[in-house]
Amino acid sequence: VRIGLFDSGIGGLTVLVELIKKFPKADFVYLGDTARLPYGNKAPETLRRYTDENIQFLESQAVDLVIIACHSASTIALETTQTPSGLPLFNMIAPSANQALMCTKNKRIGVMATKATTRSQIYPKYFNTLEKGVQVISQECPLLVPLVEEELTQDELTTLILKRYLKPLLSEKADVIILGCTHYPILKTPIAAICPEGTQLIDPAEALANTIPIVESLATGSGRLEIYLTDHSPHFIEQAHHLLGDSSQATFLFPET
Amino acid sequence: VRIGLFDSGIGGLTVLVELIKKFPKADFVYLGDTARLPYGNKAPETLRRYTDENIQFLESQAVDLVIIACHSASTIALETTQTPSGLPLFNMIAPSANQALMCTKNKRIGVMATKATTRSQIYPKYFNTLEKGVQVISQECPLLVPLVEEELTQDELTTLILKRYLKPLLSEKADVIILGCTHYPILKTPIAAICPEGTQLIDPAEALANTIPIVESLATGSGRLEIYLTDHSPHFIEQAHHLLGDSSQATFLFPET
Repeated sequence: VRIGLFDSGIGGLTVLVELIKKFPKADFVYLGDTARLPYGNKAPETLRRYTDENIQFLESQAVDLVIIACHSASTIALETTQTPSGLPLFNMIAPSANQALMCTKNKRIGVMATKATTRSQIYPKYFNTLEKGVQVISQECPLLVPLVEEELTQDELTTLILKRYLKPLLSEKADVIILGCTHYPILKTPIAAICPEGTQLIDPAEALANTIPIVESLATGSGRLEIYLTDHSPHFIEQAHHLLGDSSQATFLFPET
Repeated sequence: VRIGLFDSGIGGLTVLVELIKKFPKADFVYLGDTARLPYGNKAPETLRRYTDENIQFLESQAVDLVIIACHSASTIALETTQTPSGLPLFNMIAPSANQALMCTKNKRIGVMATKATTRSQIYPKYFNTLEKGVQVISQECPLLVPLVEEELTQDELTTLILKRYLKPLLSEKADVIILGCTHYPILKTPIAAICPEGTQLIDPAEALANTIPIVESLATGSGRLEIYLTDHSPHFIEQAHHLLGDSSQATFLFPET
C-alpha cells in the first residue's frame, strides 16, 4: 500500500514518524510544499487552493489514501472524507479533538494552534457538534513554528514564549491541551515542564495514527519513502534525517524544477 | 509615472513609504506576494521563479520602472538592471552597500539579513568588487521577520533576540550595520538602543530612495496607490494602514482570486 501525506514543511514529519512506527512495511509519499511555507498564516481561500493542488499531486503518485498532515490545511477539509478520485482522506483535526474529549475531566480543553487554525474556530465548532458544554480555550502561537524551524526547542527564548502562550490556558484550568499544529509535538517536553502535573498533552500525530485502522493491506509494501519538496531546502533534508533517524532510506525529489 | 515594486509581504512597505515621501505625485503599484511569504528562507531557484513572475506581473500593470523591494529576491538580480521588456530595474542590495562603504571608518561592516540573503554571500561579493580590504560580518536573523509581523517591536523578547544577533557584529567592532531586510527598519529604535553610540545603521529603504534620480517624469502622476495581494491577508491591510498612515488612499486588489 502507498500512503500519501502532505504538509507545508517539516511539521508533517512528526505524523510520518508515527505512521512508519505503526505500518513499517507500507510505502509512503510525503509532499513538503516548502516553496510556499508556512501555511499557518495564510487565508482560507489560499489554503483551499494549496490543499486541492497537493491532493491532486498525491493522487498522481498513485497513493491509496491521503492524509492532510497539517492542521491549517485540515481546517478547510474537516467534512471531506474522500479525495476527488474517491480515495480515503484523513485530516488532523478530528483525531486529536476526539482524544481530548475522552481525556478531559473538567471539559475545559486548551488548543494551541496557528493563526489560520485558531481563526477558523474549527475546534469549538467540532466540539459543539459532538457534545454540549465543552469549553475551548484557544491560543494562537505564531512564533512556535519559527522557533522549531530554528531548532531552539531547548532555548530560554522558547520557554519565555511558551509561558506567555500557555498562561491563558492554564489560568482557565484546561486539563487537556491539544498541540494543534504538527510542529508542536517537537516542543512537548518544554510545554510539559510549564504545565501543572496531570495536564494531558494531546500529540496530534499519535492521535491521527491511532485512527488509521490496521487492515491487512496496510501491512504490505516494501517500506519505501519518497519525499517530494517544492523548494530545494537543505534545511528540510537535514531535519528529516534528524526526525526520521539516519537509518531511514528516504529518496528526495523535486517536482517543480 | 507609475512605479512598480514588490515584496513577499509588508517589508517592502518601508520602501514604499520612503518613495512616496520623495515622489508624492507619482503613481505606485505594489505587489505583496503574501500567498508565498516569506521569501527569506527559500532557495535561490525558487526566488528566481518568484521574482520573474512578479516582474512579469508588474510589467503587465504598465509600470515605468520596477523595484525589487525585498533583499532576498534582490540577491538573484544584482547584476540585472533591466526587466525583460527593457524597464529600469532596481534592487535593494547595491544602494545600502554603497552607503555603508561611504560611512564606515574602520572598514568593518555588519550585515543583518535573512538566511537567503546571508547564504548568498551577496554583500561580501559586492564589496569585493568595489574595494579590497572591507571586512563583512554577516548575521542571519531568521526570527526578526516573525517578531515584526507579530508587532512585538517593543517587547523584551525582541530585545533578547536582538542582543543575541548583534553580539558577533559588535564584538567584531562593526561601525556600520546594514539593516539588510526591508522589515528591519521597523526595529531601528531597539537595534540602536543596543549598539554603542556612533554605530551607524543603514536603512535600506532610505538608501534605495536616494538612488532613484529625481527626474521630471517622476514628479508627474496623480498620487494613486494600488496594492495587489496574492493572499487575502487582513493582517497586511491593517499593517499597511499603520505604516502608510490613515490618510493614504490605497486600493487593495487580489489578482489570483
